[in-house]
Amino acid sequence: MATMLKYEDKDLKVVGTRPIRPDGVDKVTGRARYGADINLPGQLYGRVVRSPHAHARVLAIRTDKAEALKGVKAVVTRDDFPEMPIEYAAAGELIVNFRDVTRNMMAREKVLYDGHPVAAVAATSDAVARQAVKLIEVDYEVLPHVIDPVDALAEDAPLLHEEQITEGVDPAPEKPSNLAKVFRFAKGDVEKGFAEADLVIEREFNTKPVHQGYIEPQASLASYTEDGQVEVYTATQGHFVIRAQCAKLLQMDISKIRVIPTELGGGFGGKNNVYLEPLAIVLSKKSNRPVKMTMSREDVFRATGPTSGAHTRIKIGCRKDGRIVAAEAELDFQAGAFAGSSVPMASMCTFTRYDLENVKVTGNDITVNRPKVAAYRAPGAPISIFGVESILDEMAIELDIDPIQLRLRNAAKEGTQTYYGPTFGPIGYEDTLKRAVEHPHLKEPLGPDQGRGIATGFWFNIGKETTTTLNVNEDGTVTVILGTIDVAGGSRAAMAMMVAEELGIDVDKVRPQIGDTQALGFNFVTAGSRGTFASGMAVTVAARKAIDVMRERAARTWDVPVDGVVWEDGHARPASSNVGEFEPLSIADIARKSGMTGGAIAGHAEITAEGAGPGFGTHIVDVEVDRKTGLVKILRYTVIQDTGKAIHPAYVEGQFQGGAVQGIGWALNEEYIYDENGTLQNPGFLDYRVPVASDVPFIGTEIVEVPNPNHPYGVRGIGEVPIIPPIAAISNAIHDAIGIRLREQPMSPPKVLKAIREAGNGAAG
Amino acid sequence: MATMLKYEDKDLKVVGTRPIRPDGVDKVTGRARYGADINLPGQLYGRVVRSPHAHARVLAIRTDKAEALKGVKAVVTRDDFPEMPIEYAAAGELIVNFRDVTRNMMAREKVLYDGHPVAAVAATSDAVARQAVKLIEVDYEVLPHVIDPVDALAEDAPLLHEEQITEGVDPAPEKPSNLAKVFRFAKGDVEKGFAEADLVIEREFNTKPVHQGYIEPQASLASYTEDGQVEVYTATQGHFVIRAQCAKLLQMDISKIRVIPTELGGGFGGKNNVYLEPLAIVLSKKSNRPVKMTMSREDVFRATGPTSGAHTRIKIGCRKDGRIVAAEAELDFQAGAFAGSSVPMASMCTFTRYDLENVKVTGNDITVNRPKVAAYRAPGAPISIFGVESILDEMAIELDIDPIQLRLRNAAKEGTQTYYGPTFGPIGYEDTLKRAVEHPHLKEPLGPDQGRGIATGFWFNIGKETTTTLNVNEDGTVTVILGTIDVAGGSRAAMAMMVAEELGIDVDKVRPQIGDTQALGFNFVTAGSRGTFASGMAVTVAARKAIDVMRERAARTWDVPVDGVVWEDGHARPASSNVGEFEPLSIADIARKSGMTGGAIAGHAEITAEGAGPGFGTHIVDVEVDRKTGLVKILRYTVIQDTGKAIHPAYVEGQFQGGAVQGIGWALNEEYIYDENGTLQNPGFLDYRVPVASDVPFIGTEIVEVPNPNHPYGVRGIGEVPIIPPIAAISNAIHDAIGIRLREQPMSPPKVLKAIREAGNGAAG
Repeated sequence: MATMLKYEDKDLKVVGTRPIRPDGVDKVTGRARYGADINLPGQLYGRVVRSPHAHARVLAIRTDKAEALKGVKAVVTRDDFPEMPIEYAAAGELIVNFRDVTRNMMAREKVLYDGHPVAAVAATSDAVARQAVKLIEVDYEVLPHVIDPVDALAEDAPLLHEEQITEGVDPAPEKPSNLAKVFRFAKGDVEKGFAEADLVIEREFNTKPVHQGYIEPQASLASYTEDGQVEVYTATQGHFVIRAQCAKLLQMDISKIRVIPTELGGGFGGKNNVYLEPLAIVLSKKSNRPVKMTMSREDVFRATGPTSGAHTRIKIGCRKDGRIVAAEAELDFQAGAFAGSSVPMASMCTFTRYDLENVKVTGNDITVNRPKVAAYRAPGAPISIFGVESILDEMAIELDIDPIQLRLRNAAKEGTQTYYGPTFGPIGYEDTLKRAVEHPHLKEPLGPDQGRGIATGFWFNIGKETTTTLNVNEDGTVTVILGTIDVAGGSRAAMAMMVAEELGIDVDKVRPQIGDTQALGFNFVTAGSRGTFASGMAVTVAARKAIDVMRERAARTWDVPVDGVVWEDGHARPASSNVGEFEPLSIADIARKSGMTGGAIAGHAEITAEGAGPGFGTHIVDVEVDRKTGLVKILRYTVIQDTGKAIHPAYVEGQFQGGAVQGIGWALNEEYIYDENGTLQNPGFLDYRVPVASDVPFIGTEIVEVPNPNHPYGVRGIGEVPIIPPIAAISNAIHDAIGIRLREQPMSPPKVLKAIREAGNGAAG
Repeated sequence: MATMLKYEDKDLKVVGTRPIRPDGVDKVTGRARYGADINLPGQLYGRVVRSPHAHARVLAIRTDKAEALKGVKAVVTRDDFPEMPIEYAAAGELIVNFRDVTRNMMAREKVLYDGHPVAAVAATSDAVARQAVKLIEVDYEVLPHVIDPVDALAEDAPLLHEEQITEGVDPAPEKPSNLAKVFRFAKGDVEKGFAEADLVIEREFNTKPVHQGYIEPQASLASYTEDGQVEVYTATQGHFVIRAQCAKLLQMDISKIRVIPTELGGGFGGKNNVYLEPLAIVLSKKSNRPVKMTMSREDVFRATGPTSGAHTRIKIGCRKDGRIVAAEAELDFQAGAFAGSSVPMASMCTFTRYDLENVKVTGNDITVNRPKVAAYRAPGAPISIFGVESILDEMAIELDIDPIQLRLRNAAKEGTQTYYGPTFGPIGYEDTLKRAVEHPHLKEPLGPDQGRGIATGFWFNIGKETTTTLNVNEDGTVTVILGTIDVAGGSRAAMAMMVAEELGIDVDKVRPQIGDTQALGFNFVTAGSRGTFASGMAVTVAARKAIDVMRERAARTWDVPVDGVVWEDGHARPASSNVGEFEPLSIADIARKSGMTGGAIAGHAEITAEGAGPGFGTHIVDVEVDRKTGLVKILRYTVIQDTGKAIHPAYVEGQFQGGAVQGIGWALNEEYIYDENGTLQNPGFLDYRVPVASDVPFIGTEIVEVPNPNHPYGVRGIGEVPIIPPIAAISNAIHDAIGIRLREQPMSPPKVLKAIREAGNGAAG
């Protein structure tokens, strides 16, 4: 059974330094092989036929003209995939249901969003495949559609799923609706709490769906053989989950599917689930040829991601001294075309930075005619905390309390019991706030139309199934095979560092690589900020097992009991002078003779990692608002976050910066624009504007290290928290700059300008 | 520490059946990716400049013209490789010496054979590379050369290595010579033995070098990065050994080299060592591009393989009753350009089928101006036993004893002490002879000019370092990663079968695959018939470890002690009714919940396998000799061999048949033809004639199963023995047909015709 290793405070030689990442050169030289870089001899090119309608019944699909086109080798439609039962599985932070997954991958009775796949073709060239797409004839009965979650809850709203009865409501409603499920979390008595409050503020907030915006569009290549085995190359955050989903959807043995993950050009939660893989497999099966499928950016926008748009209502009551006595939230989250948004996580995150007696949160999961949402970095949390941190800012002004002090007065700490269950162990929230108080950023003078905002974030972080194999080579160098995808954050470097630290060797002697699904046992997707925590646990377990093997080999060499051998500084040494006088044996000494002392030296770990450490962060942002154009310019940005131990500080800082920039884009510019027919109007980076380098200043970072007691190096997760505070922090800063409080994202120039004009007319608050 | 598992006689459900091989479909559909099928974006094409001389001093190499050619990106010569010390390492059955390996891969002071590499180029196309090869200018001082091993021992023979002093001779000679080393094995007193003999026969025999004749020429692709890491795709019998050799030759950390073995189109001992790999790596390093190198068939013949040619003198003395009282052999083996032929193994195999008191064998390892020899299936044994089995045939006729009975009278058995050391455990030599006696083949009538011959063979079989990982997938199917290359014999099928047998599941639920050097710890090359023995041991160890994990998970599920759970028929069951009443849990039941019961389920093995079981075979062949053309036609051929347990009988039979056919080719047609300048005249399959389908009848097979006590399924090795007897058996059959005894291979039409004509003149014996 897997050992859950505990934190040990010790002198570190490698952990905490900043070596060059082992995957770095391949990336900067263009050698790294991403999904679309993989090709197999004789491969075909697959393309997807997508719905032009937001909502329509699929009456008939005629493929004969496409099939007759020279060069077309296979066409698949809904008829090529078996029906699936309602059976849930975790894929990243979101729960999927195979009945829905198969329908999202390939529409059956209805198309439910613009871009929904209805067929796919494989042909000898991409040009022929594109031609064939146009020859597929689909008869649609166009239905009324609904895009907005609040509209979707209306009595007469168009219904996506005629048999969808709301779950989580007692008694269950009789009528079907677009409300798929209601999640409720509560602690104490909010009514009583609000009654005791000196100040109660209740506001509504709106956010739009935004896309994960990874650089690399989805790409998959499948090669199916006549004896029912398949190899799939795909760009994913979790090759084992892709394998499991393909096995389920295609009713195959898992052993018959080999998924080889390619280098990943970003995922951020958007590459946890199948899109192209099952299509490519069945096209390959039908054509007896490898089939390569890649998405265009338009495909990516129309049919993958995004995170939910939402409408939220937040109500907070506090006493004059700033102590919060009650907090309530109602969150309406778009799930897209199929149930299962991030609203449960969003609900649990809403108030969890604070130590509260009385809390009530209701999360509504609502189906609308948009692509099924996917996880996006701290799924749901940036949306739900936007309102909370906005109201706290209002309260601080109202009560004339410094906003950081207000948060410190209510901060969750070790021993705080959350309203969804667990009680916190050691956490660093207060530390991040105290560091903010002392941060030079707060002393930076502000000019006219400039303002400063702060906001904070919380994320659970997770563990889950993780495996690794560590091989000590004959010359004492080490290879480590990892099963958690390096989603570009540098986890391979961090793993090599922990291994080097354990073994007492130079990190350059350790080569970490990602193994495919055949090399290792099941690993969960890289999500929930689990990578460095869980895989770090696994490599430490594996390294210690390898050390035990080496101690045993040394003991045999010296003919002493294995307890008489200790491992120190990369050498087996006699535990004491009683054991005898022996020259220490280096890892290379022992490895060189391993063939003669019992075989190769390895350490393996198959664990379900437990004890992830919650993460907290505090952001400070300065903005300048151009009153003429509505443009909000970020002047300065500081991220302060508790990481537990930062294994490789440069990549921790990179996570802080990347998350903050994504949050800035979300806050200021990103949104999906649909026309009246439910057709996406901006499926490209020209019209869907993510931040570019000139949009953001250097993001300042400050690492707080409160060790997680449940990890040998004290690691928490770090990747999610940095994206949570920016929307709220920027909204607060805009208010500080121009006195106008924006409760709707994006705070883009036209929206800001409109608010300024309305405020000029006395309409803003 | 690895457990060496012992043989257990039990009912078997999977082992011994004949399922379809898991790699079969890919091979017959052309999907399997062999060395030359691998391509990387931006790759260059490498070509080797080879010596046109058999022996010459390399005075100067001018590369400037080649480097100036448009499209040429890198050129390497001897200057690009570090000098190596004399340091020995095992690679397959032969021992290599890095000082020689680096010189064989790229000539330094001298070229030593026609085809010896002197430079290599990498260019943007193969056409440019071929052009560049012609622009490399080499100044040679041509030296006298020597091709034949007996000539090479002459006092005034051209000397290949000016500092080579014969090893193994006491006192060491003062003068350098082409005799690199002398190996001596002895038991008892041969002089005394011969004195007691009633009949003594002494003869000399000659064999020519023959090539392994694998279908797939060598092919390698290397991609070296600026931070000193390299990936090498190569067609090899042992990717870990290739990695080790590259690390040594290029002074790199082993962890920096990843070797990915491709599907292998045959090796037979010829793909145990580097040829192209270090050249491709350094060309890639110099050009910053991947470099692909493939050999033409001409390259393969001129500069890889072959096995030794030899001159042998065999002397055997026996009593009237056929009991052998003394046996002596002197074996002169060509090592090719660098020392290290198979003469030690040949020496040990010469008489080892027989239980003898007095034996003396001397093996001479002789350098000549030919390519450095490589191992070839049972390296050396077919050569040395040719003479022994020929003389026994002569003796049987002389003494009027049936040739099988003569061998039975002298047969090695359990308890026989070999003349090189070990004492045999249970072996099946006598069984193969007894089966031969009863075989219907012996009753087949023979016509005019038709004859029958028998001969027998022995091979040690080996174990060595072996690793494997077995992963139980979430649905209870299983993937197994193997580190021993499947050299096309079907070992993946055999491994899957042993795993299925252990786990109690269908073999179709087990997917075996070969892992690259990152996936597993060190494995020795697939050689010496170790694959199924050693890897079978490893997968059994791994399967039992996985069973232990599953028993532990079941025990936790039932809350009983782990000793209370047994594994039977693919299920965890209570060991007795005392444990409690529990429904048996299938592998799928346990696997499905593994994430919640501690993590993925796996079994790993890192072992140095010991206790390989010696293999023995008896061959019967009928031939017809065309007295007009000298053509020898094989009428019928039967292989009877002790395999220990035949895991997959069809692939055992395939090994019998393949080995016999290679032996037939060797016996009848194959030889290297050099002109007076030492230039190879027949470097292609048109002029170097291997058997084609029409040359051979269906090869009959009979499997004898005497379990090896040192393997859980009783496995011995099987691959080498079948190539050993054919030369002798066919020579004996020719004598039986036409009364002429040929003691020189190949027994090709011109040679047979010559012998017939000489016999007509009263010259043949």
